[in-house]
Amino acid sequence: MDNLEIERKFLVERFDPERMEVKSIHQIRQGYMFLDANKEVRLRNKNDNYYLTVKVNQTGIVREEYEYPIPVADGESLFASAMERPPIEKTRYIVSVSNKEWSVDVFHGDNQGLVMAEIELDSVDEPFASPDWLGLEVTEDRRYRNAYLYHTPFTSWNSESE
Amino acid sequence: MDNLEIERKFLVERFDPERMEVKSIHQIRQGYMFLDANKEVRLRNKNDNYYLTVKVNQTGIVREEYEYPIPVADGESLFASAMERPPIEKTRYIVSVSNKEWSVDVFHGDNQGLVMAEIELDSVDEPFASPDWLGLEVTEDRRYRNAYLYHTPFTSWNSESE
Repeated sequence: MDNLEIERKFLVERFDPERMEVKSIHQIRQGYMFLDANKEVRLRNKNDNYYLTVKVNQTGIVREEYEYPIPVADGESLFASAMERPPIEKTRYIVSVSNKEWSVDVFHGDNQGLVMAEIELDSVDEPFASPDWLGLEVTEDRRYRNAYLYHTPFTSWNSESE
Repeated sequence: MDNLEIERKFLVERFDPERMEVKSIHQIRQGYMFLDANKEVRLRNKNDNYYLTVKVNQTGIVREEYEYPIPVADGESLFASAMERPPIEKTRYIVSVSNKEWSVDVFHGDNQGLVMAEIELDSVDEPFASPDWLGLEVTEDRRYRNAYLYHTPFTSWNSESE
């Protein structure tokens, strides 16, 4: 299946792009038109491009993903009319580690302070080199999904204990 | 706005394609990935093509519509994994009346017995020729939206009075 996506996701301990082999940097803004436990429809603006993306969960790690580029004008209209909340904003660093690419997302706005790294794998148990900036694995922790962060941003997480 | 859609919708009294100027006939199968009062994400299979469509309501008649063709394999996977119910199935006749095109939908399956005609207009009050097969206007009746028929099909409407 071409559309199956296997990802593992980790917190980043000390984000220092100067120490990383950065291939490219992207500005990302994304929101959700619909979300439920099993599927989501996402609108994403990455640099100058807009995408409509459908994700369907299979298990915790494996998901079907379908992404379609859409015109800029459609993207801007949908951000204006079809979203329930302001978008998530993040800067994505594509980082090379031992010939594997990591996506390191540095979040802004209501998710400021959160830095996460993702790697795409060909199978759930594929081995990979673990760089020293890699922290706790959060692949199975639903709070670290962008869909969750959209409704319950990172900066709100400790508010009940303050 | 290119994506605004103004439609009026009517029941069809006596469907007789022999008496109509039929331009083309299409087999349509459609389901919904998500629906709420203000927006929907629809998957449609029309003849050999698949489309992902987003509709956002403005008022009763005016809606934004964004439709994107998607690969056949994606369409079939999404019908299999991302739908909550079996699709709506209908045959669409494109009919010409006084230089205007009508879409006449003959529903099958759980919506058997329902025949509806739609016309797209440039403005809410644009005049148009009304053919003799046109019945009650149902533009504002939410029950006749495909999204409603998907969850509450036509053949179930009178079941409580039987």
